[in-house]
Amino acid sequence: MRQRNKPWAEDMFAKNPQFVPTNPTDRKGNWKDVFDNSNPIHLEVGTGKGQFIIGMARQNPDVNYVGLELSSSVMVSALEKLIEEDVPNVRLLNENAQDLSTIFEENEVSRVYLNFSDPWPKNRHEKRRLTNKTFLDLYRGVMKPNGEVHFKTDNQGLFEYSLHSFSLYGMILNQVSLNLHQSNMEDNVMTEYEEKFSSKGSRIYRCEAQFRS
Amino acid sequence: MRQRNKPWAEDMFAKNPQFVPTNPTDRKGNWKDVFDNSNPIHLEVGTGKGQFIIGMARQNPDVNYVGLELSSSVMVSALEKLIEEDVPNVRLLNENAQDLSTIFEENEVSRVYLNFSDPWPKNRHEKRRLTNKTFLDLYRGVMKPNGEVHFKTDNQGLFEYSLHSFSLYGMILNQVSLNLHQSNMEDNVMTEYEEKFSSKGSRIYRCEAQFRS
Repeated sequence: MRQRNKPWAEDMFAKNPQFVPTNPTDRKGNWKDVFDNSNPIHLEVGTGKGQFIIGMARQNPDVNYVGLELSSSVMVSALEKLIEEDVPNVRLLNENAQDLSTIFEENEVSRVYLNFSDPWPKNRHEKRRLTNKTFLDLYRGVMKPNGEVHFKTDNQGLFEYSLHSFSLYGMILNQVSLNLHQSNMEDNVMTEYEEKFSSKGSRIYRCEAQFRS
Repeated sequence: MRQRNKPWAEDMFAKNPQFVPTNPTDRKGNWKDVFDNSNPIHLEVGTGKGQFIIGMARQNPDVNYVGLELSSSVMVSALEKLIEEDVPNVRLLNENAQDLSTIFEENEVSRVYLNFSDPWPKNRHEKRRLTNKTFLDLYRGVMKPNGEVHFKTDNQGLFEYSLHSFSLYGMILNQVSLNLHQSNMEDNVMTEYEEKFSSKGSRIYRCEAQFRS
């Protein structure tokens, strides 16, 4: 599924190694060197055009953010934004979440963000959903004990499925909100998609699912 | 909290021991004798005027239903309905859920229903919510391993809280629906309250929370 058909995007990534580290698998276990500090690392799986991760990085300068994005042409938009805003605590990786264990060492990641992930509504595509057990195993494999998956979506079916999947995994559901924009959550940083759909009145669902140690 | 100030209601219960067993604590461990069969027992906590439990009992003649209702004057309405419809597999108890362990033996109950329970929205009343850990302990204490709590409500805050509470208890969340009446759940039996509020467009939330053995 890796999309390697955009040479112009590849070129742009190669020219900006300060934001798109080359050979990320070589950084495994050494991400503190990439950031030149020991701040916690929060990972967004499916960073899209980067509004969320860059907004979070501005709000939390003491956290390091890594954004994974599978589509190189989409990641270019995030990179352009990052170059323009020049936020020091963000890195982007044109990688697949399935390869997480080749990029991060155990205990290297403190939190995972999943925002408006593809719902894959057909039953036969269940394994592709980013809250499926296969992916929870991958997240857990690189996270600290009691690490959290912060998840938001406007897709009711995906949220229902994810509550089931998280609970089956034994995770604790904290800060559940079934209508985020009508709740009093402060400091919510919106994705591009969230901005568009919540302004049209779509409900946004959110929860923080915590692994048990 | 027991409301014993309605002698006329007490009289009516006493006159209908076929539906309101006297001295329920004496039946502990012997509910199969009350029903004269070994069918599974499903318990509704907060039966109200009885539409749900009587509807379920008609739909499932091979299940025995016990409805707990704290308010004697409300339970009178359920009893009147039960007398009129003469459904054999329902019993009503004017009892408090806090006393469950004095009424049922371990493993005697297969399922618990909670329908539109009082949300007790204030933080200081959290312990009164029927999905609080204190109550989950009580349900588990009388239920079979892997027993299920089937919960529905139109109260968003109570549902959010309950997802947290169930997950903290390690329960598995099955059949989560964040908009029951827009889903394709078949055989849903509505409570009086549900009929009224869903017709006004309120969302009904539902899940089946399963204890782990």
